Order: sequence, then C-alpha cells, then structure tokens
Amino acid sequence: MSKQEISIQRSGGCCAPISVSALDEAQAAEGAAVFKALSDPIRLRLMSIIASADGEICVCDFTGQFDVSGPTISHHLRVLRQAGLVDCERRGTWVYYWSLPERMQWISALLSIPEPAALTH
Amino acid sequence: MSKQEISIQRSGGCCAPISVSALDEAQAAEGAAVFKALSDPIRLRLMSIIASADGEICVCDFTGQFDVSGPTISHHLRVLRQAGLVDCERRGTWVYYWSLPERMQWISALLSIPEPAALTH
Repeated sequence: MSKQEISIQRSGGCCAPISVSALDEAQAAEGAAVFKALSDPIRLRLMSIIASADGEICVCDFTGQFDVSGPTISHHLRVLRQAGLVDCERRGTWVYYWSLPERMQWISALLSIPEPAALTH
Repeated sequence: MSKQEISIQRSGGCCAPISVSALDEAQAAEGAAVFKALSDPIRLRLMSIIASADGEICVCDFTGQFDVSGPTISHHLRVLRQAGLVDCERRGTWVYYWSLPERMQWISALLSIPEPAALTH
C-alpha cells in the first residue's frame, strides 16, 4: 500500500474516525479483531518491541524479556501475525519479525480525534 | 485536559508511540485493558455511535440498532465506562452517554506512526 493510499484512507472512506461516523458491522468486526490482538499485555509489549525495532528483530532477542515460555511467546506472535500487525520470515535457526505499519495506522486513524482543520472539509 | 497537555503527551513521555519505544509492563497493562474494551464488535460499534454523537446520546437511541438484549447493551456500556472511554449520567428515566476523547487520543497516539517531521526531534 502506498503512502498516498494510506493518506486517503485516513481522511475518510473505510477509515473515517469513529468520532466522525458510526461503524457498520463489517468495520466493527475487523476493528475489534485487531483490538483483540492488542488486548493482552504480553502481546502489546511484543508489538511495541517489534514496532520500535530498527527494521526487523530476531525472536532470540525476546529471550529473558518475558516471564513466560517460548511456546507462549510463539503463540502471541502468531496472534499478532494473524491480525495483520506483523509479519515474519524463518532464516536458518531463527525467525525474524517486522511490523506492518499500515495496520497500526489504520487502527490509529479509526480512533483519532480529527484536528479542528480536518472538520472543515 | 487542555489541548496543549494532550499535544505534549502525544509527542512523548507516557505516550510515546510503540513504534518509537517499547512499552514497560505498566504501560502495556493499561493499554491492553483499553484495547480489550474495544475488542468486541458490539462495544466498538457502541463506542463509534457515542463518539460520533453531537455531544451526548440517550441509551434509548440504541434501541433497534443491535440484535442483543437491553441488559447486554448495558453490560457493554459498563465495560466502555470502566475503561475510561465514555461517561454517563442518569436523568429521569434515561441514561445519557458521552465519549471521553482524551482516552481515545491516548490510545491512538500509542499506535501512531510518527510523521517524518516528528522523528527529527
């Protein structure tokens, strides 16, 4: 998705902020699914570590940052991937993760309170 | 909260976007609780109806918009209120709801991908 397409989505259409127009059932189902992926403290921390990484991050870098087992971390990463928030690639022994900013921008725009200037359109 | 205070929060401090810095456990717990409140399609639609209302909205206006019982709607509204996203007041027969934009701004800023200019600070 190009930056221009994101900009168009953010200013209206399928991604008009909920402070501007009520969501229909399909929009609410899609949004709720993404919020559900972020509704666990471990997943939200994982998301923030991946999103703030410079490019991508190896799963090995999560070691010691969480008081849960490796398989539990893997489960949470899978939920984030299914929600379209991150993607990954296996290279040799390790799996590398990176964030998909378009999804966070979409959900952030959904919640945004438009600036006063935007309301004049 | 003044617009200036919101602006300060959005640009850093407790609300630095997760794309800039990893959340600590307390921030993740608070954020996850708000996302959990928004992780149900009915609650997300209720939130959008309240947030897009001009000022406040009577619970009587939700009638017929959802295929669930009144008590179920009341339950979902209570969850939104406990998450700090809406507030309400009873006046006579009806309860009136309004959104608390600061909370949506906080959670939106948490997810935001900063504009390139913001990264130069």
